[in-house]
Amino acid sequence: MKQSQLFTKTLKDAPKDEKSANAQLLIRAGFVDKLASGVYDYLPLGLRVKKKIEEIVREEMNNIGGQEILMPSLTPKENWEKTGRWTVEEMYKIKDEEMGLGWTHEEIITPMIMRHILSPKDLPKYVYQIQTKFRNEPRAKSGLLRCREFAMKDLYSFHSDEKQLDDYYEKVKQAYFNIFEKCGIRNETFLTLASGGTFSEYSHEFQTITPAGEDTIYICPGCGIAINKEVKKEKCPGCGGIKFREEKAIEVGNIFKLGSRYSEPFGLKNENGDFVIMGCYGIGITRLIGTIAEVLSDTKGLVWPAPVAPFAVHLIELSMGDVEVKEKAEEIYRILQNANFEVIYDDRDDKTAGEKFNDCDLMGMPLRVVVSKKTLEKDSVEIKKRQADLSQLIKIADILSNVQKSI
Amino acid sequence: MKQSQLFTKTLKDAPKDEKSANAQLLIRAGFVDKLASGVYDYLPLGLRVKKKIEEIVREEMNNIGGQEILMPSLTPKENWEKTGRWTVEEMYKIKDEEMGLGWTHEEIITPMIMRHILSPKDLPKYVYQIQTKFRNEPRAKSGLLRCREFAMKDLYSFHSDEKQLDDYYEKVKQAYFNIFEKCGIRNETFLTLASGGTFSEYSHEFQTITPAGEDTIYICPGCGIAINKEVKKEKCPGCGGIKFREEKAIEVGNIFKLGSRYSEPFGLKNENGDFVIMGCYGIGITRLIGTIAEVLSDTKGLVWPAPVAPFAVHLIELSMGDVEVKEKAEEIYRILQNANFEVIYDDRDDKTAGEKFNDCDLMGMPLRVVVSKKTLEKDSVEIKKRQADLSQLIKIADILSNVQKSI
Repeated sequence: MKQSQLFTKTLKDAPKDEKSANAQLLIRAGFVDKLASGVYDYLPLGLRVKKKIEEIVREEMNNIGGQEILMPSLTPKENWEKTGRWTVEEMYKIKDEEMGLGWTHEEIITPMIMRHILSPKDLPKYVYQIQTKFRNEPRAKSGLLRCREFAMKDLYSFHSDEKQLDDYYEKVKQAYFNIFEKCGIRNETFLTLASGGTFSEYSHEFQTITPAGEDTIYICPGCGIAINKEVKKEKCPGCGGIKFREEKAIEVGNIFKLGSRYSEPFGLKNENGDFVIMGCYGIGITRLIGTIAEVLSDTKGLVWPAPVAPFAVHLIELSMGDVEVKEKAEEIYRILQNANFEVIYDDRDDKTAGEKFNDCDLMGMPLRVVVSKKTLEKDSVEIKKRQADLSQLIKIADILSNVQKSI
Repeated sequence: MKQSQLFTKTLKDAPKDEKSANAQLLIRAGFVDKLASGVYDYLPLGLRVKKKIEEIVREEMNNIGGQEILMPSLTPKENWEKTGRWTVEEMYKIKDEEMGLGWTHEEIITPMIMRHILSPKDLPKYVYQIQTKFRNEPRAKSGLLRCREFAMKDLYSFHSDEKQLDDYYEKVKQAYFNIFEKCGIRNETFLTLASGGTFSEYSHEFQTITPAGEDTIYICPGCGIAINKEVKKEKCPGCGGIKFREEKAIEVGNIFKLGSRYSEPFGLKNENGDFVIMGCYGIGITRLIGTIAEVLSDTKGLVWPAPVAPFAVHLIELSMGDVEVKEKAEEIYRILQNANFEVIYDDRDDKTAGEKFNDCDLMGMPLRVVVSKKTLEKDSVEIKKRQADLSQLIKIADILSNVQKSI
């Protein structure tokens, strides 16, 4: 895409009312815009990141047998009354209506799936969606880390017995780590014991360490698992260790053994008369955007890992009015595009080299490629990874192989 | 995908409370499920259709320079008060909150884009989204044709002057016809004059003829345009003709010259002090699913045009317990998949041939491929287009080329 055509502009300074680092950077770089507290527009660059994360999550969910659906946000009161959750604070209710906005979807999927699960032979089944969630959120001041409207992947599993649930639960754990690996935050993300329910002592959260996090976790250096402050014990339930490292962290995912908590109120049984055993598994899609922005950015701006970057290459021309340089840059743009690289091409005529470099660092694509009169004198372009200190000259003839191995 | 693993089941009879043909068929075939009046779940097959239509729309919007974004559904009262639309009946309001759910997005995009459009040089710009819309809809009884929660593509264009708007308006018209062509309803869809605003005498709707439609249009055989009953004149404004054919129709898209209706209340001007001229362009994504179901279905079930079908091929094995037939069918499934055909494979062991054929017709994929002991005796499979009366035997060695030319 040509940057001269992109409708968004970067900002030197973040809006004064925006305190969180992730939202400041994402707004300055033109990825999102704030409509209201905890409510953001996703602009072209931000929407590209969101879609990439969704595709990563979708692929991993499909790999473990997930079938994708889409449930509504407008949900009837009667469903929530069956489970006693109509009165939870998170629920936005429609004025004068018997409807609330979905802040989670157990109350919708459980009755929906009843007519499709008839016999033990129909189990297990795994169904997920990537959908907007709404939560009446008093603490919406952390940018994309805590929103009143946000995108979430929620997977629900349905089983004949606990053994089936336990097996699948472990598969989801692995799929989640694959997702965080591709999002570039695997090393900072810890499987964390959190409060369970009547069915199991603990649930599991995936907590990513960042000073911007709102949770406190205790990491056990012995076994590498973490424990949420809310369930902290003297000894590590994993290995019995007694020393912990305290960290601030943000919950990017959670997995929960529900047992029959929702199948009972809706009467979801198989033909044998046994209640179906359920699990639920969430990942905050838009929260991941904010988390990556918090964890991987530096003083110059955003730093996107290649799998979630809006574009792989930021091509910059420094023609300064030189038509030949401009034409050569356009040619390189076509060469990269024809080789299926995703390129944003800074062809803007009214920006200085300094402005272009600053915008490039702020926007954070993995690889910068610069074309100027100086580089062309050596039949070359200059390439630099976003986090590298030094750039290198490479011959234009070698550009594709060099770009390929640099991203 | 193996049909034995698909979690949805078909239904012999539609739910009694569902009166519209499109919803009856879509529910029976397992494409959607009704949560409440005008509020539907999209199940795996229905979600696949929805995504295909979205991709068709996205491609056409990108082709005319559209840049995709995503705006929120939770929208602040103050935005709507600026244009006098806070009190419209369509708006769902959040209880005790100063927020309403987006039923259209002029009030959101106009102030958002202000900081990005600074000079006449920044114009024109075209921005669209594919997003859920919410409308407080008393007439929600036509299945997917009129919902309280539905998916819509809304494009907004921003121009320096009317000439720029007029040129783009014509491009959008063509893009819309391309979309309806790919959706298989081009022949039934008429450009229709409808009520305009202060800025132009008429807006344009795209109306698809169907007895299930809620609008009445008058088609002029002279010039082929239609006129909505609400603006019906004695003479055709296109060609002066005076004879019309009356039809019931459903509005699948509309395009509207807004002029400065929204740029004025928000003060969206360029540096010269002129108000930006706007256009808006909608297509009902989920309404298109319902329209295709109404217009193209027959007594046996749904009929999907290849570009929007959830799967291109419905492969059916009639092994009746014969292991060799089953193995051969599996092999053909792999051959088709490896050639990148999208295949749903009815491998269910507990269904009769009749049940499999009925489900296949009900679900409506473009091509049926049957493998049985009888076809294998001739090294063949039987193929039949969804709407053909007769099937034909083709050699397994020729299957790829035959499938290719049949869909």
